[in-house]
Amino acid sequence: MASMLVAAAIFCLAAPSGSGPAATPYSSGRAAAVSGALTRFSVDPAARNPGRQFVAGKVPLGLKRKGLRVLVTGGAGFVGSHLVDRLVARGDSVIVVDNLFTGRKENVMHHFGNPNFEMIRHDVVEPILLEVDQIYHLACPASPVHYKYNPVKTIKTNVVGTLNMLGLAKRIGARFLLTSTSEVYGDPLQHPQVETYWGNVNPIGVRSCYDEGKRTAETLTMDYHRGANLEVRIARIFNTYGPRMCIDDGRVVSNFVAQALRKEPLTVYGDGKQTRSFQYVSDLVEGLMRLMEGDHIGPFNLGNPGEFTMLELAKVVQDTIDPNARIEFRENTQDDPHKRKPDITKAKEQLGWEPKIALRDGLPLMVTDFRKRIFGDQDSATTATEGQ
Amino acid sequence: MASMLVAAAIFCLAAPSGSGPAATPYSSGRAAAVSGALTRFSVDPAARNPGRQFVAGKVPLGLKRKGLRVLVTGGAGFVGSHLVDRLVARGDSVIVVDNLFTGRKENVMHHFGNPNFEMIRHDVVEPILLEVDQIYHLACPASPVHYKYNPVKTIKTNVVGTLNMLGLAKRIGARFLLTSTSEVYGDPLQHPQVETYWGNVNPIGVRSCYDEGKRTAETLTMDYHRGANLEVRIARIFNTYGPRMCIDDGRVVSNFVAQALRKEPLTVYGDGKQTRSFQYVSDLVEGLMRLMEGDHIGPFNLGNPGEFTMLELAKVVQDTIDPNARIEFRENTQDDPHKRKPDITKAKEQLGWEPKIALRDGLPLMVTDFRKRIFGDQDSATTATEGQ
Repeated sequence: MASMLVAAAIFCLAAPSGSGPAATPYSSGRAAAVSGALTRFSVDPAARNPGRQFVAGKVPLGLKRKGLRVLVTGGAGFVGSHLVDRLVARGDSVIVVDNLFTGRKENVMHHFGNPNFEMIRHDVVEPILLEVDQIYHLACPASPVHYKYNPVKTIKTNVVGTLNMLGLAKRIGARFLLTSTSEVYGDPLQHPQVETYWGNVNPIGVRSCYDEGKRTAETLTMDYHRGANLEVRIARIFNTYGPRMCIDDGRVVSNFVAQALRKEPLTVYGDGKQTRSFQYVSDLVEGLMRLMEGDHIGPFNLGNPGEFTMLELAKVVQDTIDPNARIEFRENTQDDPHKRKPDITKAKEQLGWEPKIALRDGLPLMVTDFRKRIFGDQDSATTATEGQ
Repeated sequence: MASMLVAAAIFCLAAPSGSGPAATPYSSGRAAAVSGALTRFSVDPAARNPGRQFVAGKVPLGLKRKGLRVLVTGGAGFVGSHLVDRLVARGDSVIVVDNLFTGRKENVMHHFGNPNFEMIRHDVVEPILLEVDQIYHLACPASPVHYKYNPVKTIKTNVVGTLNMLGLAKRIGARFLLTSTSEVYGDPLQHPQVETYWGNVNPIGVRSCYDEGKRTAETLTMDYHRGANLEVRIARIFNTYGPRMCIDDGRVVSNFVAQALRKEPLTVYGDGKQTRSFQYVSDLVEGLMRLMEGDHIGPFNLGNPGEFTMLELAKVVQDTIDPNARIEFRENTQDDPHKRKPDITKAKEQLGWEPKIALRDGLPLMVTDFRKRIFGDQDSATTATEGQ
């Protein structure tokens, strides 16, 4: 209890007011590079205010509101919790809805005790009634290990969960942002992928629960926009990494980092020449917020167009953590896309957004967080990047 | 009441026993060509019986069943009602579940009073508990006019409806057949389409509610198969025509036939050179039953590979109904696939199936039915093709 009060007090001192320039939870010296990048990115308050008036929900007459009320589904997850940090920091009232299947309470515990923050343990597959101005809908397991664990539940989350959140948005007049995925492009026949590309997705494969689920979530979002005049936004998120990623979720960055830290060989599937693009999480969060506050529906690719082969990534991990880390080749899984790289022209032009953090700059921040979580330094682990 | 009793009596006289060679509801002189075709197709009872033992549901111990108990969702619709005719004719106990959004009671009324037939007005978006051995899951509006009417409801029907029926199949140990669609191929870049083609579908267009909905239904079906060991079958149905089609559903065959009968000009969209393949409904029903009774999961293309341009189809309609019918060109809709034609090699080889009814033979049977329904000869309309 005492620690919560202290945390709240620290928070109140650290939190900027909603009207000032957007400070970030990264603003301490610990992550100066990232903080600088985020400052360059910060949304101009003058530009943001008209948007705020526009997206206002059904506020009871005569009540003056301070800041926005924002719902973040999946807000205790990797990306969600970083988004929550930014929203809280700018003075919004944030409600997190999370069933904690892959989310972790530790990711948002530093906000406990803040009256502008609330966490509800709830599964979006069931309806929920809340009063907010904006809904960031992130809830869904996002790594193959997790989304294949119960494919039917994954589809329910994507389709029924999105239906519930769209229904809520319609009811309360909130603006709705869907976090979709580069997986809607499947194993793409076009490279890099632009938003108008329809994709190459296997409808009956073992990854389809996620790919097709997200495609249908996009369809639902557009159908609510067309049919109910709902204000919607669609982001297609490419590979993202950073502090608070699940450690053993089978994704390549978290795999390599955890393996190198544990002195295990880095497992490369296939010949290691398949490529991916890696986006640092603060870049993504900035893109999501710009999309929500802007005028454009989407879909928008949000990703870092820098392209790395698996072997190049392994090299960066070796350079960052352990030059002596061994590489072990294993047979590739059948359904692994050969390459994926976002064309971000649209986001650049319409949102004025592009990623700023290079892999060699972002990776060390993630390594610091992983090291603390893996080796049990629990107290400082969750605040590794917050600097509070 | 009296008429129902008479109908029931007539039915009992007309219905063949389940053990004999499969007779069909088309067996009178009125539709001799089709009847002949169906007889050639009929499933050999000896070949069918092992399948029946194999698919048996959880029968209470010591109870001997006669025939199969079969659920047909969407059984009051165009394709569903023809399937029901065949199943009832071979001696099965048939339950139709239909919300009558596009289905019509008239399509199955000739079975009312038969103890082996039951119709439940129910929407598959809500769960239902029944005890059957097989589930043919056809429920979904299938013409663009209908499925675009309420896109969100269309997705719910495809995803939640399929979930409910898969859940039922799992609970009672029934075999499950999903009727998917050639629309999963979208605007195909491969021609003709084979089952291994992943398709070219717009995830955020106005047709996506149907296309993506059906793709996700296929995913769910395979996920239940992989995860719960459910016996599943997937059919991908190409354009089908025949008696009992909805008259004003905007599909080209029903449009042309209704227009020619009403002495209106036949509306051709675009230059009329886009192609489609047209399958007579009895061919499809035969394919669905072979798929259900056989050993192969699918997906299987079920369609007639004969390819017609819209102008060629208009010519056949002119020849059949009114040589003087005018053709009127209109601007094409944005999302109309340019061509579509099934590769049915897989169904030929694994199900021993191929369509038998040529367009010029099938169309007159549909015209007879449409003429009676359009010009109000209600009494004979619904039994036009049953010959009862």
